[in-house]
Amino acid sequence: MRVLVVGASGTIGQAIVRALSPKHEVIQASRSKSELKVDIAEPESIRRMYRSVGKLDAVVAAAGEGVFKPFAQLTDDDFRFTLSSKVMGQVNLVRYGVDQLNEKGSFTLTTGILFEHPSPGSGVLALANGGLIGFVRAAALELPRGIRINDCCPGWVAETLKAMGMDPKGGTPADVVARDYLASVEGTFTGRSLRNAGG
Amino acid sequence: MRVLVVGASGTIGQAIVRALSPKHEVIQASRSKSELKVDIAEPESIRRMYRSVGKLDAVVAAAGEGVFKPFAQLTDDDFRFTLSSKVMGQVNLVRYGVDQLNEKGSFTLTTGILFEHPSPGSGVLALANGGLIGFVRAAALELPRGIRINDCCPGWVAETLKAMGMDPKGGTPADVVARDYLASVEGTFTGRSLRNAGG
Repeated sequence: MRVLVVGASGTIGQAIVRALSPKHEVIQASRSKSELKVDIAEPESIRRMYRSVGKLDAVVAAAGEGVFKPFAQLTDDDFRFTLSSKVMGQVNLVRYGVDQLNEKGSFTLTTGILFEHPSPGSGVLALANGGLIGFVRAAALELPRGIRINDCCPGWVAETLKAMGMDPKGGTPADVVARDYLASVEGTFTGRSLRNAGG
Repeated sequence: MRVLVVGASGTIGQAIVRALSPKHEVIQASRSKSELKVDIAEPESIRRMYRSVGKLDAVVAAAGEGVFKPFAQLTDDDFRFTLSSKVMGQVNLVRYGVDQLNEKGSFTLTTGILFEHPSPGSGVLALANGGLIGFVRAAALELPRGIRINDCCPGWVAETLKAMGMDPKGGTPADVVARDYLASVEGTFTGRSLRNAGG
């Protein structure tokens, strides 16, 4: 399959590229570190990327940023930023990418554990993740030509914890997290939110 | 209790006012049909309303619009409109209203069934509802002074179906839907999404 990985330079993105590469043609895109550049918060940047990339069998999104901050400190801009990047960035990767996908292609988005397991500071991210999970469930009913859509819902990633100076044992290694993305790309299911089943 | 109902002129809003009125002081607000006017899609309109209304024990939101439309026809503006009205309108009723609430006060928002039971056409509304459910779960962990937050998740309302020329038996009467709002205002629980348990 010909698979576009958006956010390919991140911790999870790199693991997804490693998981896909033995069997698939992988095209890497990211905001600055890949040859193919895209800023998913900018609709025109997504459209430009799709125009240049040709037909695809799968799009995997491991991109999009959000704000983690105590509720009382959240600003209007924190919501605006997270909705335009993590939420609408991934939603638009789907909306603008449908015509670029071959029959029975797939989209795989990245949500996160803070919808099912919110913690203090997750007001915006629980909103973002719940919104994306809802979008995936609904879009799965209407995508044309057998195109599928799922989201992966990683918890804490071991490498991320280590980079933050915390005990990596509290997280899942990125290569394990990547198994869900591989399952979504290679499987036949749609409309599902995958929770580290690969572990 | 002193309860502000936003969206008081709608089908569900009117039923909430009827349910609360025997035991509580109810202040009604809506975009055009109530004495107290508010457009929740406009942050400044919400702030103005709160400045004029005085201290409250509960805020109930039965307001906020969203777009129901086939996936392939959804526009960038459909997402923008729904996110600014139904989603951020209700989120901002909470964020800007916290200081207006007395100790152990509560917020009750309106989500909808399309997150748990999406149907074709619900791409934006499943996103909106999932986002709000996530926000409620997370905000419940951080609201100060014992302030609670829940959402009510009505399915089809009988009166709405009738107004659309459909069989009202497929829906729940608004006065039954309103019981969940009453339970949220008068109860002691927080962070929950109520699904017509009152029926």
